[in-house]
Amino acid sequence: MVVDDNKYQYELGFSVRDYECDLQGIVNNGVYLNYFEHARHTFLLEKNIDFAALHDQGINLVVSRIEIDYKHSLTSGDLFVVRLNIQREGLLRLVFNQDIFKLPDNKLVAHAKVLGVALKNGRPVKLEEIPGFRDLV
Amino acid sequence: MVVDDNKYQYELGFSVRDYECDLQGIVNNGVYLNYFEHARHTFLLEKNIDFAALHDQGINLVVSRIEIDYKHSLTSGDLFVVRLNIQREGLLRLVFNQDIFKLPDNKLVAHAKVLGVALKNGRPVKLEEIPGFRDLV
Amino acid sequence: MVVDDNKYQYELGFSVRDYECDLQGIVNNGVYLNYFEHARHTFLLEKNIDFAALHDQGINLVVSRIEIDYKHSLTSGDLFVVRLNIQREGLLRLVFNQDIFKLPDNKLVAHAKVLGVALKNGRPVKLEEIPGFRDLV
Amino acid sequence: MVVDDNKYQYELGFSVRDYECDLQGIVNNGVYLNYFEHARHTFLLEKNIDFAALHDQGINLVVSRIEIDYKHSLTSGDLFVVRLNIQREGLLRLVFNQDIFKLPDNKLVAHAKVLGVALKNGRPVKLEEIPGFRDLV
Repeated sequence: MVVDDNKYQYELGFSVRDYECDLQGIVNNGVYLNYFEHARHTFLLEKNIDFAALHDQGINLVVSRIEIDYKHSLTSGDLFVVRLNIQREGLLRLVFNQDIFKLPDNKLVAHAKVLGVALKNGRPVKLEEIPGFRDLV
Repeated sequence: MVVDDNKYQYELGFSVRDYECDLQGIVNNGVYLNYFEHARHTFLLEKNIDFAALHDQGINLVVSRIEIDYKHSLTSGDLFVVRLNIQREGLLRLVFNQDIFKLPDNKLVAHAKVLGVALKNGRPVKLEEIPGFRDLV
Repeated sequence: MVVDDNKYQYELGFSVRDYECDLQGIVNNGVYLNYFEHARHTFLLEKNIDFAALHDQGINLVVSRIEIDYKHSLTSGDLFVVRLNIQREGLLRLVFNQDIFKLPDNKLVAHAKVLGVALKNGRPVKLEEIPGFRDLV
Repeated sequence: MVVDDNKYQYELGFSVRDYECDLQGIVNNGVYLNYFEHARHTFLLEKNIDFAALHDQGINLVVSRIEIDYKHSLTSGDLFVVRLNIQREGLLRLVFNQDIFKLPDNKLVAHAKVLGVALKNGRPVKLEEIPGFRDLV
């Protein structure tokens, strides 16, 4: 499958770690959220938006909704990339589209749509009020 | 919030374990899939459908799609239940509706819709061909 | 194996969750630290020592050393208990002895010795200075 | 701290992933076993000893004992390496010495001694009988 690289703003390479596989010998469905999160956080960090530092400032970035389509399994020894792009939705929400492709043949393994919001004292804050977000999307 | 217990076929109680919380002090988004999976598997086991035994027989139950709405956070010390019901969708797919309610006030924390299929040699098999499924839904 | 219950101050029951098993079909070695930690924290909480609340007060309880002997494996569907006792070692260190027994036959699955210290601003503090510890051991 | 690189046969680089940090904001003690395991498995794979393939052949490599000294914490954003060497102990046991050093200053974060055995039908087998092990140590 040919990947249209223009679709994505960022990609991060991974390899499956054996402890991530469950008794079926494939990566457990929950582990994909770890992959997706780590790719989002390294992307944001590159844009100077630091998940941990924001928490220390009282702002929590949280996931409000996630949809994942699992197309193929990952297993021991597999190499893969998480590719993503980001969009705004209104004043409060960020949408990440994230795809996992197995290497070297770029087979689509999983697709996720992740909605995130920023909370301050438990309430949503406008994205623009968050340091660094203005330049993000 | 009043829970209509007739909506659910099964429930399983949990308590948050501290290692499940991330640096924000709340349960990480990926951990919810662990909770949902464990509730599905104990429900199926009660119906004599054993995830691990099926794997040994060459049948893998896998998640093909998951949608989660995160409504509120869970944190250290919280008690909660996962409630679920199950439906067939066509010949091949099971749909689990799963809700997490925080105790003691039954506040809805998260809702998930999980689609599952059974694979044999990597191909979907009809649910009816799986021992025990005939009586499930 | 007969368990001398007088040896232990506390026990907590668990069941193996399928996602905790790795591709060998047995609970992964790292997961045992989750079991041990959860048992320590629920024990401490019962003694009014709250891991999360202490963190909010600037005191971090951390593990400084752990030794584990793995005797037998745990697998899908297993029920087990973690039993523990606690001792002081000098002014600064707590020692937890923790055993995992598989039910119903009380077979010893793993033994751990866990050393813990309390840190404030990154430096060890005397156990006595921590609220609640005076009555612990 | 100067690292004597001759001490080690292998090293693997990592970065902390935010989901690996617990509510104290530091990598949870159990996660270190994931790091140590992944470094062992990639080392063995480089020596043509494939943990997953061995399992398919009925041979399980398991940890029988682990000792870890936690010297310093790892936190969000940290880069580190796991360095290791391997020794035989008798006919049946492998000993891995594994150190984690934080980059860029090579500060020792944790040291582990890990004993491993190979099981076939639940019984230890001589290391020499395992394909590839003859050339390992």
